[in-house]
Amino acid sequence: MSSATNPGFTSGAQTVSMPTMKAIILAIGDELVLGQTADTNSAWLSRELADHGVTTLYHKTVADDVDAIAGAFTTACAESDLVVATGGLGPTADDLTREALSRLTGKPLDFHPPSLERIRAFFKKLGREMPAANRCQALFPRGAEVLDNDWGTAPGVRVRQGKASVFVFPGVPREMAAMFDRHVAPFVSRAAKGVILSEIIPTFGAGESGVAEKIADLMQRDRNPLVGTTVSGGVVTIRVRSEFPTADQARKHLDRTVADVKQRLGTWVFGSGADTLQGVVGAALKKRRRVVVTAESCTGGLVARMLTDSSGASEYFRGGWVAYANEMKESELGVPPGLIAQFGAVSREVAEAMASGALAKSGADYVLSLTGIAGPLGGTVEKPVGTVWICLGIARSGSRSFKSEPFLFPGDREAIRERAAKTALNRLRLELVEE
Amino acid sequence: MSSATNPGFTSGAQTVSMPTMKAIILAIGDELVLGQTADTNSAWLSRELADHGVTTLYHKTVADDVDAIAGAFTTACAESDLVVATGGLGPTADDLTREALSRLTGKPLDFHPPSLERIRAFFKKLGREMPAANRCQALFPRGAEVLDNDWGTAPGVRVRQGKASVFVFPGVPREMAAMFDRHVAPFVSRAAKGVILSEIIPTFGAGESGVAEKIADLMQRDRNPLVGTTVSGGVVTIRVRSEFPTADQARKHLDRTVADVKQRLGTWVFGSGADTLQGVVGAALKKRRRVVVTAESCTGGLVARMLTDSSGASEYFRGGWVAYANEMKESELGVPPGLIAQFGAVSREVAEAMASGALAKSGADYVLSLTGIAGPLGGTVEKPVGTVWICLGIARSGSRSFKSEPFLFPGDREAIRERAAKTALNRLRLELVEE
Repeated sequence: MSSATNPGFTSGAQTVSMPTMKAIILAIGDELVLGQTADTNSAWLSRELADHGVTTLYHKTVADDVDAIAGAFTTACAESDLVVATGGLGPTADDLTREALSRLTGKPLDFHPPSLERIRAFFKKLGREMPAANRCQALFPRGAEVLDNDWGTAPGVRVRQGKASVFVFPGVPREMAAMFDRHVAPFVSRAAKGVILSEIIPTFGAGESGVAEKIADLMQRDRNPLVGTTVSGGVVTIRVRSEFPTADQARKHLDRTVADVKQRLGTWVFGSGADTLQGVVGAALKKRRRVVVTAESCTGGLVARMLTDSSGASEYFRGGWVAYANEMKESELGVPPGLIAQFGAVSREVAEAMASGALAKSGADYVLSLTGIAGPLGGTVEKPVGTVWICLGIARSGSRSFKSEPFLFPGDREAIRERAAKTALNRLRLELVEE
Repeated sequence: MSSATNPGFTSGAQTVSMPTMKAIILAIGDELVLGQTADTNSAWLSRELADHGVTTLYHKTVADDVDAIAGAFTTACAESDLVVATGGLGPTADDLTREALSRLTGKPLDFHPPSLERIRAFFKKLGREMPAANRCQALFPRGAEVLDNDWGTAPGVRVRQGKASVFVFPGVPREMAAMFDRHVAPFVSRAAKGVILSEIIPTFGAGESGVAEKIADLMQRDRNPLVGTTVSGGVVTIRVRSEFPTADQARKHLDRTVADVKQRLGTWVFGSGADTLQGVVGAALKKRRRVVVTAESCTGGLVARMLTDSSGASEYFRGGWVAYANEMKESELGVPPGLIAQFGAVSREVAEAMASGALAKSGADYVLSLTGIAGPLGGTVEKPVGTVWICLGIARSGSRSFKSEPFLFPGDREAIRERAAKTALNRLRLELVEE
């Protein structure tokens, strides 16, 4: 891909080439350069910028060294329109991004009393006195714009250097992402020359290659709208990016491609945008005024945690059991004595008995039960690590039915548990769709 | 950290300044710059280089663009002794690292017949004809050293440019790592002037600035061993890096600083290296043959999930209840009717009743119970979002005792839940330490 301009696009018979904004992403921190922490911020920022039509030229990761940081800023400002940097805004002596910005702009660092007040208030809310060390987080190069941080103590900062706009955020991913959305997203949207509209379609149930097989022709690199996929924790996300001179054209082409993708991928598609499986399941339960409970063994509470990721979960989630030990499966979920000895804890029979007990005790409409071997220990030839029985139990007009299925999930313990939990949620989602 | 030389060190009365080898790491690929793939190679290479006493100046990630790649190589060769690059050696049109190396060295690309033979043989072993596209993988700048790849089709290459040695490997992590071990490790070992040893000390219970206040003098940037902190999800990690001419000196100074840090931070220190709170708690329970259960409301199963993060958790974790709805707190954990109406679900009384019920039903030695308001909805003036009651219940020789404390955690729902869960685990850790 050319790093300086977008490839142009075809609109009817006409090809238009349009300069795009160029960005450079800097990540600051010894822990990154030493390889002790993986830098996830830069990839995240790149994706967000791409969705806004901004081309990232490069990422650079530098140490907590004022010369290195200032040098990276100076070079980046000469080479791009937009510099987004993360890290080095903490309260300790190795946080040197403020000094580097002062050197970049040639402006002294001034105290910003409103920020000092905000930081004090942040600590006060926690019932603590602000440590003296945190004072330095209210220092900014003279004339800089202070960017409030509602999620932590370190404010961000924006300066202009030559033709480049420089945004600096804390390295904490959550704070960085929230501040990008508030401060950079509106800026790049205003600066865009054409109109870029994008849509995100999350899917579950097929691997990345399974999805790619269905939409290979739409994924050509020179197509507009451009279709790409990313995969994370079993969720394959399709990104559609439509870039045209007018909003009407961009919208029309985007809608057409999105409809095509959705039609081809069918029930793998579970929502849109940043929807999560648990969010979609929760909304569907709430709409139908149904309630779910959980009965987990190998996932150890993960499905319950996911179902309670949203405020208001009490409308559709009553609670759950983590029956990790076999005696808990019997004493709390009423799994009949002898069943585990006969079939093993990882079996259809035990999954369904756990589900049955949870429905009986809770009076819920649905239960998800899981029993499996997350490893790395505990696997056998018949039931290797990754084997998980997942049961959806349904209580309807006085009777109970169970839909159980065995799975073999790949990966390490964490991956197996995450995949199992999402597969269970997806099972309930498909049930709610069918009903 | 100084990026040009190590800061020198004091050895008795004598200060010695010692030049270390300086490296720059380049990662090449559109998928990295677009954020579609996370670059894990650079962090891995940094760690390996640090272990060999090589200081990494920076990482840079560039697109599949011959100008960008050649420019990055040229700059890196002028700024360092060693350049390690990954990616862009594949067989497709967007693999341009070979052309960039030709431009860097000013040498034409020649076919290397032995490599062509190796690539052909690689495909033959898979029972396939070599595709014509793969021919280009046998092209190297004239005079370059070809580095065999026993794990894939793309050979690596080494060139010398000015005073810098340049190693280029395929981007596939496994191939990259194996080729680093074979080709770079011996090279840097021969060239190493000093020895770098490092240690990681994780802490919980104080913020980053709270930790920094205790060890401010150790965190001077020109100190050797060098001490730095990073924070993630409430865990403040202290890194100590010791760089001396001999392993004995490096070890002696490292041990002394680590002991000093540990002494000053006391029980905030919960382990070493990559230890987690749940791992440390699990090991301590196992050692004492004690068993814990959980009774969670606002954390929705998160504490249980953390306690089951390791294989073998069944030795110390029996199970848990997610009593999200008030009726579940009453029916499953025996919270007395009327208690919630009188004190509210988020109260010492309810936290202790949940803990009491869980101990009675499970026969466990410990219980962690949590009830709070994770938000964003549900806060009041008296009990704002972030309020969480955490109770540690202890069953000992027939009687039960409860240690309860209210907390006010900052951040969004996810942060509040994570902090609450870790605080609960830390409470149990401190109890086990005291006993």
